Amino acid sequence: MTDLNTKIDLNTMGKDAQAAAFKLGQLGTLKKNAALNKMADDLEANSSNILTANKVDLDNAKANGMATAMIDRLMLDTDRIKGMADGLREISELPDPIGKIDRGWTTEDGLDIVQERVPLGVVGIIFEARPNVTVDAAGLCFKSGNAAFLRGGKEAINSNIALSDTLRKSLKESGLDENSVQLISDTSHEVAQEMMELSEYLDVLIPRGSGKFIKMVVNKAKVPIIETGAGNCHIYVDEFADLDKAVKIIVNAKVQRPSVCNAVEKIIVHKNVANEVLPKISDALSKYNVEIRGDETVQSILPNAIAATEEDWSTEYNDYIIAIKVVDNIDEAISHINKYNTKHSESIITENYANSRQFQKQIDAAVVYVNASTRFTDGNKFGFGAEIGISTQKLHARGPMGANELTTTKYLVQGDGQIRK
Amino acid sequence: MTDLNTKIDLNTMGKDAQAAAFKLGQLGTLKKNAALNKMADDLEANSSNILTANKVDLDNAKANGMATAMIDRLMLDTDRIKGMADGLREISELPDPIGKIDRGWTTEDGLDIVQERVPLGVVGIIFEARPNVTVDAAGLCFKSGNAAFLRGGKEAINSNIALSDTLRKSLKESGLDENSVQLISDTSHEVAQEMMELSEYLDVLIPRGSGKFIKMVVNKAKVPIIETGAGNCHIYVDEFADLDKAVKIIVNAKVQRPSVCNAVEKIIVHKNVANEVLPKISDALSKYNVEIRGDETVQSILPNAIAATEEDWSTEYNDYIIAIKVVDNIDEAISHINKYNTKHSESIITENYANSRQFQKQIDAAVVYVNASTRFTDGNKFGFGAEIGISTQKLHARGPMGANELTTTKYLVQGDGQIRK
Repeated sequence: MTDLNTKIDLNTMGKDAQAAAFKLGQLGTLKKNAALNKMADDLEANSSNILTANKVDLDNAKANGMATAMIDRLMLDTDRIKGMADGLREISELPDPIGKIDRGWTTEDGLDIVQERVPLGVVGIIFEARPNVTVDAAGLCFKSGNAAFLRGGKEAINSNIALSDTLRKSLKESGLDENSVQLISDTSHEVAQEMMELSEYLDVLIPRGSGKFIKMVVNKAKVPIIETGAGNCHIYVDEFADLDKAVKIIVNAKVQRPSVCNAVEKIIVHKNVANEVLPKISDALSKYNVEIRGDETVQSILPNAIAATEEDWSTEYNDYIIAIKVVDNIDEAISHINKYNTKHSESIITENYANSRQFQKQIDAAVVYVNASTRFTDGNKFGFGAEIGISTQKLHARGPMGANELTTTKYLVQGDGQIRK
Repeated sequence: MTDLNTKIDLNTMGKDAQAAAFKLGQLGTLKKNAALNKMADDLEANSSNILTANKVDLDNAKANGMATAMIDRLMLDTDRIKGMADGLREISELPDPIGKIDRGWTTEDGLDIVQERVPLGVVGIIFEARPNVTVDAAGLCFKSGNAAFLRGGKEAINSNIALSDTLRKSLKESGLDENSVQLISDTSHEVAQEMMELSEYLDVLIPRGSGKFIKMVVNKAKVPIIETGAGNCHIYVDEFADLDKAVKIIVNAKVQRPSVCNAVEKIIVHKNVANEVLPKISDALSKYNVEIRGDETVQSILPNAIAATEEDWSTEYNDYIIAIKVVDNIDEAISHINKYNTKHSESIITENYANSRQFQKQIDAAVVYVNASTRFTDGNKFGFGAEIGISTQKLHARGPMGANELTTTKYLVQGDGQIRK
């Protein structure tokens, strides 16, 4: 069992992680899948211990006056443990990204080159108070042949230790290196900072949590980062939209879970349908007490709308607020979105073929939808079993990241004595 | 013509680059290839102007006492201009990376997803005194639909301006946006620093030059970076090596061009062949006055060898120096290389099938060779027409970077009104 009082030596943990990663990178698919299924079974079998540890975290959280929404994210029950276990089972059923040949060719010098997918090595994940990240991240890292090096928030530390101890015991019983999954049990800021600078051992660091938390990690880290999360998402209601479809999608994208990065924050409406669709949008959103902000045209059609400021167009509310703008044509919609978006998820509602094509080609974002809610930008909904985050950068990975996105490539070159002239 | 005295406004240049990138990202392959061929022809047609500008740089360099090797890198002649033009023609003949579908599937919710290759947007390149980088970078960026935002060293400024003016005029005559290629004509450190912080407009920044230069850029930049260049490359002479092949490859990899990142720096030799191969290696390298450093076994076999220190194993000499170590077995060779290498290029010399496989699977590097010189790690030799650098990082791109590596992806999702439950 991990001991909370042990002095943490990140260098030793890093070395152990590298050694585990070396072995894990060469492990066959069937062995990895069997281990993932055993981890899932062991999590369920060990439910009562995990729930006991979780109760300590919950009691501390209540004593410290944690907000109800946060307590809900921290709370585990047998259903949620089964959910995590099923996530591992789903990951086991996905294709193994390792060993895939991306391309291959013979050069003018007669060298045979193949570009093969290989693990990144040691993947660091630094996250806030959601214990499910421990299991999701460990599962995706394991499937992609990477050692997982985890550091969760102090609010969930007892739950995280119980979860990672279960996974490590399971690995050991499978005859594998338990250091394929390691959790830093010291939740001090000093150790977090030390982890963010552990370039010698960590190949990448992925922060998961609030925008504020991610920004802090990006600023402090010396390990290469994959940035996740910021979402100022738009839905454009084209002049050729099916307006009922538009209203349903907008309501879903705004209120089904307003606090997340793929919730819609802005609606752009073509002027030819503004008079008809704006009152419908307003009526539908009013049932959920969504505050509407808008430009002058919107205000003239919806008297209750508050004037939107320049700042509104670039703000991610993560709340029951939406801002609406009316445009003259699709070009104006596209250029407004490309100017203010965070390159996360954008959707056009239209029945017009040419406009659907233009929007998808010209919008610069990780995911561009036609006639669907932006809420589908999610590793699970994309079919990746779980997600390690949603990348909002252009380098390495873009959009929901699953096991594939935790790989890099290696060129293997076969020669017969070639030298360069 | 670019005026050296104009006050540089990087924000305006950045906006112009983004506008050009938006158009360039949608340009068809045939139009891009025609423009690349015209750029090649125009470079050759404009040779005399380019050489006149280059002469100014050369005269300044000589007056300032620049080293001969540096002057050689700065010098252009009609052959070198033809070489740059042929590079553009080669890039035109390569497949267009844009629009390629990496994968596609239908989700449980009935959404059709494709992941399509798209340009990064605006690619910044910051480089030292080699004018050919201007043309290579512009060509690769153009083919991959990216606007090139270039800043070269002050030693080559007149040559770079002549080259970029030629390319921009050529683009304009092709009816395309000349701002697809922009060169910053102010070579002050202040403007370089401003460029490294231009996150609003640059999607990526790639430094090209010496290790010291690249390190400086990595430390100062706020734009996402692709790190290139460090190469502490090894050749392992296995007990089953063809020793003549080994000696030829080692000599080529060490002396054909010792100053570059893919030159070999370390030789690891299996103990069973050390007595036979070490004198051969020593004899062959002595013709080029290569200094040999070695461990105790090497020193006992080669009396002239200098004792290698711990520091030697991690040093990239970029010079006529090599360090040699004798190992007991292939496992020891692999673990030494993985400990000290810079993950660039490593080669095994062997006629044994199992050992060739083990080496390629277990070595962690961008390129892993069997029976070939490490000097082949190069965009041109890989068949990429030119290269934008050799990535030594694991994220985004690894090894020689051509047009493919200047792309990202976008998920296009087709729905029929799906909302998330």
